[in-house]
Amino acid sequence: MVKAAVLGAGYMGSAITFPLSDNGVRINLWGTWLDDEIIDSCARAKHPKLKKKLSESVTLYYSDKLKDAVKNVDMIIIGVSSEGFLPVFNRLLDTLEQDPPIFTLTKGFIHGEKGVKRISEGAEALFRKKFPHRKFSWTSVGGPVKATELSNRVPTATVFGMNCPEIKKNIKFFSTGYYRVFTSDDVAGVELSSAFKNVYSIALGICDGLYQERSSGIYHNLRAFLFNQSIREMAFLVEMAGGKRETVFDFAGLGDLHVTSSSGRNRKFGEYIGMGVKADNAYENMLKDGEIAEGYSGLKNGIVWVDKLRDDSLKELPQLKMLRRVVCLNHDAGAELERYIANSGY
Amino acid sequence: MVKAAVLGAGYMGSAITFPLSDNGVRINLWGTWLDDEIIDSCARAKHPKLKKKLSESVTLYYSDKLKDAVKNVDMIIIGVSSEGFLPVFNRLLDTLEQDPPIFTLTKGFIHGEKGVKRISEGAEALFRKKFPHRKFSWTSVGGPVKATELSNRVPTATVFGMNCPEIKKNIKFFSTGYYRVFTSDDVAGVELSSAFKNVYSIALGICDGLYQERSSGIYHNLRAFLFNQSIREMAFLVEMAGGKRETVFDFAGLGDLHVTSSSGRNRKFGEYIGMGVKADNAYENMLKDGEIAEGYSGLKNGIVWVDKLRDDSLKELPQLKMLRRVVCLNHDAGAELERYIANSGY
Repeated sequence: MVKAAVLGAGYMGSAITFPLSDNGVRINLWGTWLDDEIIDSCARAKHPKLKKKLSESVTLYYSDKLKDAVKNVDMIIIGVSSEGFLPVFNRLLDTLEQDPPIFTLTKGFIHGEKGVKRISEGAEALFRKKFPHRKFSWTSVGGPVKATELSNRVPTATVFGMNCPEIKKNIKFFSTGYYRVFTSDDVAGVELSSAFKNVYSIALGICDGLYQERSSGIYHNLRAFLFNQSIREMAFLVEMAGGKRETVFDFAGLGDLHVTSSSGRNRKFGEYIGMGVKADNAYENMLKDGEIAEGYSGLKNGIVWVDKLRDDSLKELPQLKMLRRVVCLNHDAGAELERYIANSGY
Repeated sequence: MVKAAVLGAGYMGSAITFPLSDNGVRINLWGTWLDDEIIDSCARAKHPKLKKKLSESVTLYYSDKLKDAVKNVDMIIIGVSSEGFLPVFNRLLDTLEQDPPIFTLTKGFIHGEKGVKRISEGAEALFRKKFPHRKFSWTSVGGPVKATELSNRVPTATVFGMNCPEIKKNIKFFSTGYYRVFTSDDVAGVELSSAFKNVYSIALGICDGLYQERSSGIYHNLRAFLFNQSIREMAFLVEMAGGKRETVFDFAGLGDLHVTSSSGRNRKFGEYIGMGVKADNAYENMLKDGEIAEGYSGLKNGIVWVDKLRDDSLKELPQLKMLRRVVCLNHDAGAELERYIANSGY
């Protein structure tokens, strides 16, 4: 019997238990120190966010039982937020006795000692410091997956960005008739696509906030404009960072942006801003409802990261610049959007 | 003063008069033999489909006045449907005395003497037969443009696929603050993207027809799956036909598919099929309301065209195959979609 530990009992961590359990995998679901109430609720009845009972194959672990949760498992799946990644990963390294393959659902950037990094870069550095002679077997899981839909077994594509081909043998534990796995060897491309689609979804949200009422929902041309330019800029960013443009033009990039920009927390965050709410207030309001708009920190970290890559790169990224001015510097959304559009193309 | 003739007074032909007239261009809008009532209505009050009065710079011409409409113009813009293209283009060649640049908004394939062709291929062959020593200056206009939104000056991107760089000097007559023109030298890529986005939008519509009620609109993962696979297959098709993959990953392809699959006649046509209506009936019902689902003929012609390109090409196009089985062969949409999904990826 195959055993997996899932770290993080929020939306994504809990949702991935559905295809795993459908494949007969036994799952230890560990909640972080922020997840105690979720674990309580799952133990009593349903997962409070997914509104569903978890499978019988899931064993629940509170935050102080990490060591037990990861003991003798065949795979570790990390499903915490980008903010939670470093503390959880450091604790994991402290307790880990074997070196099972690690799959991460976390999207965004991390702030390490040496500044902003991709998650796998940060994780690998920490892993190698602790275990210089062990194998770092890593998969960044991306693609268009809303957790609530996955837990309802809606047909879903995902992409596994793997750092070595042997990981493929684990795909059969994830894949079901409704959860289809595509693969890529471009870990950087998958990770950056996942991080930046959260950022660019804010632009689509801003447009919704500005136009929804004014145009009674009739602004498909503008949404497509912003969607398309998001993909253009994500391709530029990924290529500049050593990833492949084609990764952006596939499930990790355009597929995932499609889901995230039509429905999701980052789109919602942008919508508030389009309606005139300041970014910090929008973020705090959503946080009170338990919703983290990861694209906000993604934008702030992303800009630091972009600046480091090349001096003049923001020139090639007019939509990211517009986002920076509106979201980070509180410039007027309507005026900035109009100016940005009028300076695009011919 | 610059003069342009626009042939076809339907949605797109009439909508393009808005940015042109905003640039001070004088426009002769010629209606085909199917457009007489539209011309009547425009002359009296409003354009009946766009629900808007046309600009004072627009002069209206009935179908028997083609010669007058195209006399001494600096540009010709063809805005008829793919079904109407050949008869209109042949009449145009019969009357044309100069050789102004031609811009076409028509999307799809044409049935010439030698079978199914891209529109520009067919047009060039006819042009060269008639005028062997004249210059064929051709632009296929693509990208995410819903006509009603363009006529309401919603910010819009378009792509001009041009067969020679000198055409660029005409862009200034089209481009406005809200209508932004991007350029490409990949005419085949732009044309095929425009034709196939109509076809693939049917797949998104089928999914809406099947899932809208069943899942209360909660199937974003599946929509993104189908959207993404559409782009994958369009890139394969365009590359196989000698176009560029990058054209599909930009406004002509993914941008236009974004608009067409979220709102439009081809999506609607697919939705009927997803709800159990046979394709011919769905097409006829829409036609009664004056709505042509061009993706239906696009699918039928497209499959003939694909088969000619390479023997086994449908193997690489599982979503197109699914469409063929459901739309052309009346197989059960739900069963076919499920089977197609379960055979994708790992």
